[in-house]
Amino acid sequence: MMTTNPLDDDKLHEECGIFGIVGHGDSAAHTALGLHALQHRGQEAAGIVSCDGRLFHSQRGLGHVSDNFGSQAVIDALPGDSAIGHVRYATSGKKTIMRNVQPIFAELSFGGVAIAHNGNLTNAKTLRRDLVRRGCIFQSEMDTEVITHLMATSRQADVVDRLIDALTAIDGAYALLMLTEGKLVGARDPYGVRPLVLGTLDGAPILASETCALDILGATFIRDIEPGEIVIITREGIRSLKPFRNTQDRFCIFEYIYFARPDSVVEGSSVYEARKRIGAELARESGTPADLVVPVPDSGVPAAIGYAIEAGVPFDLGIIRNHYVGRTFIEPTDNIRHLGVKLKHNANRAVLTGKRVVLVDDSIVRGTTSRKIVQMVREAGAREVHMRIASPPTTYSCFYGVDTPQRKDLLAARLDVEAMAREIQVDSLAFISIGGLYRAMGHEKRNDEMPQFCDACFTGAYPIPLTDQNGGNELEQLSLLVSNG
Amino acid sequence: MMTTNPLDDDKLHEECGIFGIVGHGDSAAHTALGLHALQHRGQEAAGIVSCDGRLFHSQRGLGHVSDNFGSQAVIDALPGDSAIGHVRYATSGKKTIMRNVQPIFAELSFGGVAIAHNGNLTNAKTLRRDLVRRGCIFQSEMDTEVITHLMATSRQADVVDRLIDALTAIDGAYALLMLTEGKLVGARDPYGVRPLVLGTLDGAPILASETCALDILGATFIRDIEPGEIVIITREGIRSLKPFRNTQDRFCIFEYIYFARPDSVVEGSSVYEARKRIGAELARESGTPADLVVPVPDSGVPAAIGYAIEAGVPFDLGIIRNHYVGRTFIEPTDNIRHLGVKLKHNANRAVLTGKRVVLVDDSIVRGTTSRKIVQMVREAGAREVHMRIASPPTTYSCFYGVDTPQRKDLLAARLDVEAMAREIQVDSLAFISIGGLYRAMGHEKRNDEMPQFCDACFTGAYPIPLTDQNGGNELEQLSLLVSNG
Amino acid sequence: MMTTNPLDDDKLHEECGIFGIVGHGDSAAHTALGLHALQHRGQEAAGIVSCDGRLFHSQRGLGHVSDNFGSQAVIDALPGDSAIGHVRYATSGKKTIMRNVQPIFAELSFGGVAIAHNGNLTNAKTLRRDLVRRGCIFQSEMDTEVITHLMATSRQADVVDRLIDALTAIDGAYALLMLTEGKLVGARDPYGVRPLVLGTLDGAPILASETCALDILGATFIRDIEPGEIVIITREGIRSLKPFRNTQDRFCIFEYIYFARPDSVVEGSSVYEARKRIGAELARESGTPADLVVPVPDSGVPAAIGYAIEAGVPFDLGIIRNHYVGRTFIEPTDNIRHLGVKLKHNANRAVLTGKRVVLVDDSIVRGTTSRKIVQMVREAGAREVHMRIASPPTTYSCFYGVDTPQRKDLLAARLDVEAMAREIQVDSLAFISIGGLYRAMGHEKRNDEMPQFCDACFTGAYPIPLTDQNGGNELEQLSLLVSNG
Amino acid sequence: MMTTNPLDDDKLHEECGIFGIVGHGDSAAHTALGLHALQHRGQEAAGIVSCDGRLFHSQRGLGHVSDNFGSQAVIDALPGDSAIGHVRYATSGKKTIMRNVQPIFAELSFGGVAIAHNGNLTNAKTLRRDLVRRGCIFQSEMDTEVITHLMATSRQADVVDRLIDALTAIDGAYALLMLTEGKLVGARDPYGVRPLVLGTLDGAPILASETCALDILGATFIRDIEPGEIVIITREGIRSLKPFRNTQDRFCIFEYIYFARPDSVVEGSSVYEARKRIGAELARESGTPADLVVPVPDSGVPAAIGYAIEAGVPFDLGIIRNHYVGRTFIEPTDNIRHLGVKLKHNANRAVLTGKRVVLVDDSIVRGTTSRKIVQMVREAGAREVHMRIASPPTTYSCFYGVDTPQRKDLLAARLDVEAMAREIQVDSLAFISIGGLYRAMGHEKRNDEMPQFCDACFTGAYPIPLTDQNGGNELEQLSLLVSNG
Repeated sequence: MMTTNPLDDDKLHEECGIFGIVGHGDSAAHTALGLHALQHRGQEAAGIVSCDGRLFHSQRGLGHVSDNFGSQAVIDALPGDSAIGHVRYATSGKKTIMRNVQPIFAELSFGGVAIAHNGNLTNAKTLRRDLVRRGCIFQSEMDTEVITHLMATSRQADVVDRLIDALTAIDGAYALLMLTEGKLVGARDPYGVRPLVLGTLDGAPILASETCALDILGATFIRDIEPGEIVIITREGIRSLKPFRNTQDRFCIFEYIYFARPDSVVEGSSVYEARKRIGAELARESGTPADLVVPVPDSGVPAAIGYAIEAGVPFDLGIIRNHYVGRTFIEPTDNIRHLGVKLKHNANRAVLTGKRVVLVDDSIVRGTTSRKIVQMVREAGAREVHMRIASPPTTYSCFYGVDTPQRKDLLAARLDVEAMAREIQVDSLAFISIGGLYRAMGHEKRNDEMPQFCDACFTGAYPIPLTDQNGGNELEQLSLLVSNG
Repeated sequence: MMTTNPLDDDKLHEECGIFGIVGHGDSAAHTALGLHALQHRGQEAAGIVSCDGRLFHSQRGLGHVSDNFGSQAVIDALPGDSAIGHVRYATSGKKTIMRNVQPIFAELSFGGVAIAHNGNLTNAKTLRRDLVRRGCIFQSEMDTEVITHLMATSRQADVVDRLIDALTAIDGAYALLMLTEGKLVGARDPYGVRPLVLGTLDGAPILASETCALDILGATFIRDIEPGEIVIITREGIRSLKPFRNTQDRFCIFEYIYFARPDSVVEGSSVYEARKRIGAELARESGTPADLVVPVPDSGVPAAIGYAIEAGVPFDLGIIRNHYVGRTFIEPTDNIRHLGVKLKHNANRAVLTGKRVVLVDDSIVRGTTSRKIVQMVREAGAREVHMRIASPPTTYSCFYGVDTPQRKDLLAARLDVEAMAREIQVDSLAFISIGGLYRAMGHEKRNDEMPQFCDACFTGAYPIPLTDQNGGNELEQLSLLVSNG
Repeated sequence: MMTTNPLDDDKLHEECGIFGIVGHGDSAAHTALGLHALQHRGQEAAGIVSCDGRLFHSQRGLGHVSDNFGSQAVIDALPGDSAIGHVRYATSGKKTIMRNVQPIFAELSFGGVAIAHNGNLTNAKTLRRDLVRRGCIFQSEMDTEVITHLMATSRQADVVDRLIDALTAIDGAYALLMLTEGKLVGARDPYGVRPLVLGTLDGAPILASETCALDILGATFIRDIEPGEIVIITREGIRSLKPFRNTQDRFCIFEYIYFARPDSVVEGSSVYEARKRIGAELARESGTPADLVVPVPDSGVPAAIGYAIEAGVPFDLGIIRNHYVGRTFIEPTDNIRHLGVKLKHNANRAVLTGKRVVLVDDSIVRGTTSRKIVQMVREAGAREVHMRIASPPTTYSCFYGVDTPQRKDLLAARLDVEAMAREIQVDSLAFISIGGLYRAMGHEKRNDEMPQFCDACFTGAYPIPLTDQNGGNELEQLSLLVSNG
Repeated sequence: MMTTNPLDDDKLHEECGIFGIVGHGDSAAHTALGLHALQHRGQEAAGIVSCDGRLFHSQRGLGHVSDNFGSQAVIDALPGDSAIGHVRYATSGKKTIMRNVQPIFAELSFGGVAIAHNGNLTNAKTLRRDLVRRGCIFQSEMDTEVITHLMATSRQADVVDRLIDALTAIDGAYALLMLTEGKLVGARDPYGVRPLVLGTLDGAPILASETCALDILGATFIRDIEPGEIVIITREGIRSLKPFRNTQDRFCIFEYIYFARPDSVVEGSSVYEARKRIGAELARESGTPADLVVPVPDSGVPAAIGYAIEAGVPFDLGIIRNHYVGRTFIEPTDNIRHLGVKLKHNANRAVLTGKRVVLVDDSIVRGTTSRKIVQMVREAGAREVHMRIASPPTTYSCFYGVDTPQRKDLLAARLDVEAMAREIQVDSLAFISIGGLYRAMGHEKRNDEMPQFCDACFTGAYPIPLTDQNGGNELEQLSLLVSNG
């Protein structure tokens, strides 16, 4: 009878955010705050592992960072001057269970290792099957666990060499953090699909998924970690390695469209300004006569502002968001019409009545929410409803760490734009073109040989091999079901 | 070490929201949804009492509506076709304890009575002292409990007559709901300080604090309950009484400025449009050359839009809000600068750098948050920061159901505008004038003999006597402290 | 699917134990320990109210004393040098809910009053109906609440005079404790049905239901409180009042048979020795040739020892008790035979095989457990099973604070001894005679005019009027059902 | 401020009880009941793993069986017709944490394996160090985990062959159960130190630590599993293997003295009758003139009965036990004298005053409790106190699955009998001789070459090599501390 908020089901979700700090007296408190700033990247579970130089300390839990790390007692249970943390979004349709909450920890022959990973490995199933055959015992369904077993069975002596051994064996997208007794190590995959930035606070180095995690602490941004780069941070300093032969920059373009927080600067560009430029480009490509530009809150706001300025049409809040949406609520019954949308949104009737409205949203996934929002806006008296989408049609699944529905459930994979317009019952519908998107990102055109971004969800051009074909991000499940303990 | 979000401490808070429905199969589920839409009026506790025609059923708890009423099991424990509910904001500095969560219930000689109350009684202490002397045993610190004891000791036979007896004895502001075996009764005080609206869903009458609680259910708005009006709703129909001699319309003007949800229509006016008109009036009164109009999210947004349009200055999101703010978090230490503000807000550096910024906020209470926000905006590179406030200076405490700091803690009660500008370190500061506010609300001027609104927090003109002088909304506390059970 | 241990359903249960101390630094910790020693008198809920001279502090909870008062934090939340506590057994078939957990507290015009009560009032319903008509609002279903309302509406000035007013109005059995700012008051009803003893620890006076609550603290027993006596204990000393005209000693004889702990001394007699004498008398009255005397553990042990010595038959443990019985467990299904009994007991096959066994138990209530135990003993190989019961047949309900089934459910009210023997499938069955019981208690014979004990459950001779006829210990229920909060 | 019951600290504790069933519709419910009957073997944690033929289901928790498995919901979460379960006693001074609760589960290349183990491995540390070096990642501190890793890395194809590989590598005492998709396997170490019995219920085979776990279900005892025997139970039938070369019967004699439940029959002998014979032998060896034989409840009762009969001295309950002892309670302060003992025991003054008392207890470990009990008995008026112990002096630690203090903390390892008598302040003290103990167990004399039992705790004659010397049952700890999750 309970359901997660239905609106959320109609967005793509980043699966993780990561944060690490070393050499700071308040390492766990700062990690909790950094994770809090990254909460939008994963809301189902949060975990922190700290190291006091001798022992590791772990606290993990389902739910938000503030649910799990809001008390001094929990922070006090995480002593030490280095820590890494993780926020997690569960893969579609599966509830997160405790054994799949990160950071993961393994006691290897030379000591403890904690790992936090954002992304998805595309040959984890294949590697795992092999490791199990050789006698490894897995404890979770996480692809990340392949890395610790590859490290445990590596013949290298040094822990970083063992990590390189492991990373060389894996395919996929990853930004990852590893904490050992004396070191914090950060790594990005050779294509740099997932973001990872380096900052500093009072001389203590920080690694985090986005700059907003630095801002919350008043820390200083230093630089992005590069594709294929491994940084080893000790109390003595920072060392950088580039052990992989081929690296290319194929950063996930969807981070700009939806995943990243608007106040973050990723790979040198402000997310907020990028979204406004996309909105402006959208207005240039598919402007339409209207009285109002109305964002679908909150993700559609920057693009709507960009669109409104470019189109010279007033921007106004025609939809009001309720900020107190819990993560679960009573399932809508027939008696309660449109409840799904109304738990979170209400039409602002005074603004909409009699108006021609341009609704601006970041993307359309399944289309179920768009349809309800359009209907709500019409019932509030809008005369015309035009939908403008700040991304190209989402037609392919992501296998690099984003929770996408199967292709058959993507509206744009089933229907052309005209049919989609009918489906969601708008007077007109337009998406930004792939060319327009690249222009908004500052490129004259997409390099079709070697695109400047990973845009596989729009184009099907997957840069990293999908070894676990037909398996996507589903790893083999343990035959153990645990409800408790 | 824990603290409620420090930003919240720098707003005034409505103390309650109420909702009731009668004659509907899903009365408890609908009440939960109605309360969810009213969550902004009280976030510390929520309760519902339903009646199945014979027995009453009660579920109350600390926290949000979705925390307490998100499961089917809880809803199932509230059978019956009528229900009332309440969300509560605790009075300043006091943690809500279970015995002070509404609705309250009393078993009188003729049957059970449940009451939910928004507002504050100004002679409750005096009445209570007298009732205790006569042998009444109070169970809570709530002023509302005076009403049930007055009803219990009334000599009237009919329950509505007993309620009128009780209401005649009390002074104060109230919108209240009473549920008995066969009736839902709604009442507003003779001055109509607190809002109460009547709606209908599938033929079932609804009473609620605001229209947004109707919208979430797809219910139809019928009319506002009038000042001094008592409506008695049974399965047979609705009856209206006006038992009080003197009634005047003195609706709380702060509901338009901050308390009510922007998508609500109260006393005939759209809250959102009112806020935009206030912003426009503010621009006319105190416009200043600038590059950007930036709202302090989220309450400053409509006024900022109104200001931007009137002033012809671009509106932009220079401050990004983190929507995942939990209700508690680790207290800021010296190591973590400006944490209070940064848990909830981050400056959008890309937008602000080098700009002359007009910050628009709804009000200034203590001024502590304003100062931090200004500092954050400056650190993000703003060249000039001008603050414009969509209400007159808040100089008096409210005794009618709003949690205001003591006068000495109100910044505007201590300092004039210039001194305030220095205190919060802005280049300029302006508040809308009291006349401008009334103009924005559609009145040529304030009627100083008998003002069209209650504006006591700005003017000190208290319409209802403050009998419990020097006691304000503090009732005598029980000498019993209960930690548990 | 859950059930309280089925064996417990086949015993009578004392409804409460009480403890109070004044003038001791560790008042709450000592009260918790005293209640722990009285745990056998009530296992469903426990509560303590302390007073620090100015404020009262309350902690109450469902479950055992150690569940609720085992942590220093809870004890620390009960500051002050005086405290009273209560353990409660719920009335049959009704789950205890929080509002019915004692001590109860009321804020009267002159200050706070906490009351803990063991017993049952027989005119509470009548008084309550009247008080409600006069405007009193009740908060619970407890008969004890009548006392606080009678005190609240009394015209006496002094708190003790108000208590006497209240006690004069009520009929029933009670040992009660009242705590006010400066006083601990103890009272026994004019018939002295329920026990109350006075002790002292390091100069601090103690009142408790049984001496075992003194022993656990190393406190010294002083004397029993007398029937109809009221003792007022202040830091200055102890004062005794006897405000009731007619008092008689009619102590509950079942306290000796089953309720009181064997190591307690009540009304001058050792409970353990009394039970052994009853067993010996039983052997004299109804000895039978046998190989073994086996107690039904644990309550049958002392009588079995007395029987065995008198009869010259070896005593042995033919039934072993599992001490880890939780209060709830999975309900027996058809697949699990005799589970009810076996959760708690197992036959000791090695002892029983081929033997003629005398089973000794304290009483037979419904007979359901007796039957299962007999069957278990037979299946373990006993050749003959003779049951001897250390009380006369229980044929009447108790209305003085013991949870008895309705008469129709008492096996002895339905059947004569021979039919009962067939029902529980023993080779022979005998109860001690009422005369034998009085002899064992040291009286030549029962004084039928004015019996030396209350023995109403055996004889129907109720000493105190049953005003709330046909209502027994069921008070009118509030029309409010509360699942939570 | 909290402490586990201090009395418990002065007993030796069996570390585990195990139970398994296959081919029964209610496998989890029956396992819960079986574990409940074995609760005396481990009270700190309980777990069950069931298998539905395809998936395994796990429920584990800290606390008693009834705390964790008392609800139908938990049982329903354990579907399948086969299950194994485990109750655990933590090793001395260490709190059990969730990762160390059994059964353990491992996903091997051919499927899932769950293991529950009673006993202790004496070369686990050595083996573990080697496995970690080879790349195995351990998840717990349990020695049992060595077995799953040995199985995972075995080159045998069949799961039973892998288990035999693993068992061949390990030294130590074990009775263990393994559950795979189609099989329940039981094994006892070659010396048969720990008990394991086979039974049947409605055709479904059961393996359990003691017969009392069969009795609770009404199941039939078939036979003891033999030392070194492995039984493989499938739906098709039971197969027995004896893969170890040297096996000898060296059953733990302390099971008869204290660990096993008195109603169990182990290795062909009734535990209760054995205890009575030991008591009788004790009376013959060290009888003394007395008025009363008083057991220290409850473990001393059978020996006291045996002693009393043999000595012709009356048996009586001079010490009353409080059955409501929670597992934690407030720590005794100086104000509360002898609290440790009095929480659980009270002297029965009426029985003891003026008497010469023989106290019978099963063993003396540290002696702290004995001293307090003697003092309590003296304060209750006993004229003489003579202590008789139903085991020889406990002078050596056990490394085979019993939680013994270090040798220096064993009273008998420090002092001779006369000094011990002075320490616990008795008038006389005697232990049964080792020869007397063997006689009571039916052997003419102890075979000193190859003793009929493991009696290492009395004699130091350890049958199984102690490879992890000086390490005993302490395995290396993970460097990860987990407070939560």
